[in-house]
Amino acid sequence: MILGRLKIDWDSSVPAYRQISGYVRAAVEDGRLEPGHRLPATRDLARQLGVNRNTVVAAYDALVAEGCVRSHTGRGTFVVPRPTATESSTPSAEPASTWFTAFSRTVEGATDGGLQSIYRLAISGEGISFVGSYPANETIPVERFGRAMARAIEEGGSQILAYGATAGFSPLRESIAADLRAKGATVDTGQILVTSGAQQALELVFRTFLDRGDSVIIEEPTYTGALTVFGAIGARAVGVPGDDQGLRPDLLEIALQRNRPKLIYVQPTFQNPTTCVMGRERREQLLEVARRHRCPVVEDDWAGDLRLGGEDLPSLYALDGGRHVIHVGTFSKKLMPGLRIGWVAAPQPVYSRLVELKRIEDCGTSPLLQKALHVFLQENGLSDHLRRVLPIYRERRDTMLDALQRHLPEGAQWTRPVGGLFLWVTLPGDFDGNELFVAARQKGVLFSRGELFHSNGQGRNSMRLTYSAASPSQIESGVAILGELIRERWPRGGDATRRSAVEAMPIF
Amino acid sequence: MILGRLKIDWDSSVPAYRQISGYVRAAVEDGRLEPGHRLPATRDLARQLGVNRNTVVAAYDALVAEGCVRSHTGRGTFVVPRPTATESSTPSAEPASTWFTAFSRTVEGATDGGLQSIYRLAISGEGISFVGSYPANETIPVERFGRAMARAIEEGGSQILAYGATAGFSPLRESIAADLRAKGATVDTGQILVTSGAQQALELVFRTFLDRGDSVIIEEPTYTGALTVFGAIGARAVGVPGDDQGLRPDLLEIALQRNRPKLIYVQPTFQNPTTCVMGRERREQLLEVARRHRCPVVEDDWAGDLRLGGEDLPSLYALDGGRHVIHVGTFSKKLMPGLRIGWVAAPQPVYSRLVELKRIEDCGTSPLLQKALHVFLQENGLSDHLRRVLPIYRERRDTMLDALQRHLPEGAQWTRPVGGLFLWVTLPGDFDGNELFVAARQKGVLFSRGELFHSNGQGRNSMRLTYSAASPSQIESGVAILGELIRERWPRGGDATRRSAVEAMPIF
Repeated sequence: MILGRLKIDWDSSVPAYRQISGYVRAAVEDGRLEPGHRLPATRDLARQLGVNRNTVVAAYDALVAEGCVRSHTGRGTFVVPRPTATESSTPSAEPASTWFTAFSRTVEGATDGGLQSIYRLAISGEGISFVGSYPANETIPVERFGRAMARAIEEGGSQILAYGATAGFSPLRESIAADLRAKGATVDTGQILVTSGAQQALELVFRTFLDRGDSVIIEEPTYTGALTVFGAIGARAVGVPGDDQGLRPDLLEIALQRNRPKLIYVQPTFQNPTTCVMGRERREQLLEVARRHRCPVVEDDWAGDLRLGGEDLPSLYALDGGRHVIHVGTFSKKLMPGLRIGWVAAPQPVYSRLVELKRIEDCGTSPLLQKALHVFLQENGLSDHLRRVLPIYRERRDTMLDALQRHLPEGAQWTRPVGGLFLWVTLPGDFDGNELFVAARQKGVLFSRGELFHSNGQGRNSMRLTYSAASPSQIESGVAILGELIRERWPRGGDATRRSAVEAMPIF
Repeated sequence: MILGRLKIDWDSSVPAYRQISGYVRAAVEDGRLEPGHRLPATRDLARQLGVNRNTVVAAYDALVAEGCVRSHTGRGTFVVPRPTATESSTPSAEPASTWFTAFSRTVEGATDGGLQSIYRLAISGEGISFVGSYPANETIPVERFGRAMARAIEEGGSQILAYGATAGFSPLRESIAADLRAKGATVDTGQILVTSGAQQALELVFRTFLDRGDSVIIEEPTYTGALTVFGAIGARAVGVPGDDQGLRPDLLEIALQRNRPKLIYVQPTFQNPTTCVMGRERREQLLEVARRHRCPVVEDDWAGDLRLGGEDLPSLYALDGGRHVIHVGTFSKKLMPGLRIGWVAAPQPVYSRLVELKRIEDCGTSPLLQKALHVFLQENGLSDHLRRVLPIYRERRDTMLDALQRHLPEGAQWTRPVGGLFLWVTLPGDFDGNELFVAARQKGVLFSRGELFHSNGQGRNSMRLTYSAASPSQIESGVAILGELIRERWPRGGDATRRSAVEAMPIF
């Protein structure tokens, strides 16, 4: 159904009813909705979109007023035939959009809006932002990186401004491999592919394994950007619940038996969005189950080196000896996102396909950026940077935890992350985080809605709050505003408390 | 059939028979070829691979000697059962590759090796290279770009080292739009998406329109990188022949009727590899036919601004008013490839899908690189650069044309390009360019085999010679070596001459 693609953009300043009417109007104009087509009943569309029925009624009323649709009481609302263009109309009189009615399933399937919603909002620079999983802008070592860049151009010359190897700039690949080995992995340079951020690394890995209709096991909730890739591929994400140690191996076992997935996608350390850390035993159990089912594991270590407390744990990649685990990492979070440099380490048969697909997607990542990053790493730029920023993140995390304690009503729950850039708040089960989002935005506070991290439309009662990119005073006032809004909406009576107790049980 | 994926890599130093035996051995080891499987008859495999039958016989002999297969006279050659691993074998004793037998159709379909073959060879820095379509390395304005980069970092600060908008750095997009407008196009900044080179632009466009099994019209021969994307998507490339004015509209009409393609992909200016320029009338005819069939056109203007003579022609994008043409361009050829910055300009309904898919692939191209490029453009860096390099390319083109005239036997034909970076040589119809490639490489001269630009395995009698990246003296000695090798192989008697006359007729 045409309207099946419609989703309300809660980040938009356009009211929901106007988003609906605008979507229908565009569909009528470009021919996707033909004259005589009957629109869904207001009740059904309201349920599908998760909006109040009156919102849909308002949208239909607007369309009737425009003459775009007509309502027949008791029969429904229908698209009105439009005055047809004459056959002799000049080509330029024909609206361009009528040619573009058949896009690929890749782009039709991808429109879940989740990644777009978070990404657009996060770079908007609007208000007090707890959106995005971003390093603090003011901590980016601009001058020092500038010197590394200058040295890179001086040393690299025209060579690094020409085409480079698709797999990446070798000295940088060596550095990445050496760092993984220092953390216990068995890997050599020939298994490292440099990508345009972890997003491309994940996209390449998923495209390498997954065809339309294939299943992939995910943690529920999980990284929005991964869910969006699954949508584009047409793969089926099978969410496996977890506990405070991460994905439950017994449930993983059942999911593997039932779904015969091609991959298991996990973030064992500082999971996005739940901040959960998989314990060592749990890691070994996961690998054991995966091994038994011969199912490769994709380990997304996006927050590597962003540990604020506790002890480092071996990666799945290290524990497995790099045999059936594909390891994804990035410099975006621990250093700076603007380089767009991530990587993937993979067993040889996978690696060669990844390089091939990378070549097809963009030939290779800019050697200039890779050389500059390599110079920066050689000069201990990263370790110096981490020494400087980790205390800042620690302070901001603590400020946020403290503010939550003071401002949120009893019954709200949140995680106490030992690493990464954000924390995860769970409100009573029937709490409408989407509505809260709109209200908070009006007061100048942004957060990431929990729904965006779910494959199944759930999670409206949760939110991800990024502490890394806001100042302590912004954190204090932002959480105060959120607390006030949440208190105003807090469900009354024992019923809500009961639901809270059930639904707020850590999903994992 | 498993061996259907096998292709001989003519760039490899591994003899063809060992490539075949290696491929079969790997397929047996990782289980794709099961015990008892009968290998194809040597005659059939030889035909499929385009090798001498003795080459396949040698490969099978080697496999028999290894105990990997067994020959039964009159019945064929069969895979031998291997000693099975015991059930109790430890996980670590199991070869990793046995897990990785089911990759997606994306990567299985993509393995035509064409792009890989050209790209790997082109960046190898080996011998006298006429491979790749590359600007001359020594002309890259390293110092001036270095200053632009320094200014970009100074001015942009942490902002350009953070995440940027997926569509690109706005000032750069404005520059690109302004340049297109100056060339007659109707376009605004909001229709420009910055990509990681033209390769990503094409890949995004093709993924936006094409599903597995869809048809796309191409010029035959055409850009290898586009063919590789079609392979990955599983789209069917329908080659339409042309004449010296480009794609023939009458044949395009027939192809559109028969195949109902989703797209027409063309390079109207300095076509890669034939260097053909579509005349203005032909451009209008093409648009007229496309318009009648409501088929969007993808215009790949990779060599924009690299005109060495003659007059500029309006782009299809300009002629069409940007309504049904999607326009792809790049800074890789006219400035420097290492930035990996290209762009696509598209009508709005297409544009929004492209941005969405770009976000899924890599979130966005590095704002740092975009800002540096923008500073460089603002300071007239590009126009100064072109004023400097175009005379160099003109001289190299003329040197190559002159050398071809002196060294190639009568009957060989080549184009006299008025722009771009290479020319296209056509030899008699039964000339084996693949064999010539191996012989030339042994003598230190590299070229791009014509076969790589064909969707249909034809074109072995042609080659693309890049003049831009070699010095005049290298061009002279490289062409002399090629000339000698070609003369040694020149077909004798009237028969060959006749074939030459027919087959060397400009394909278009």
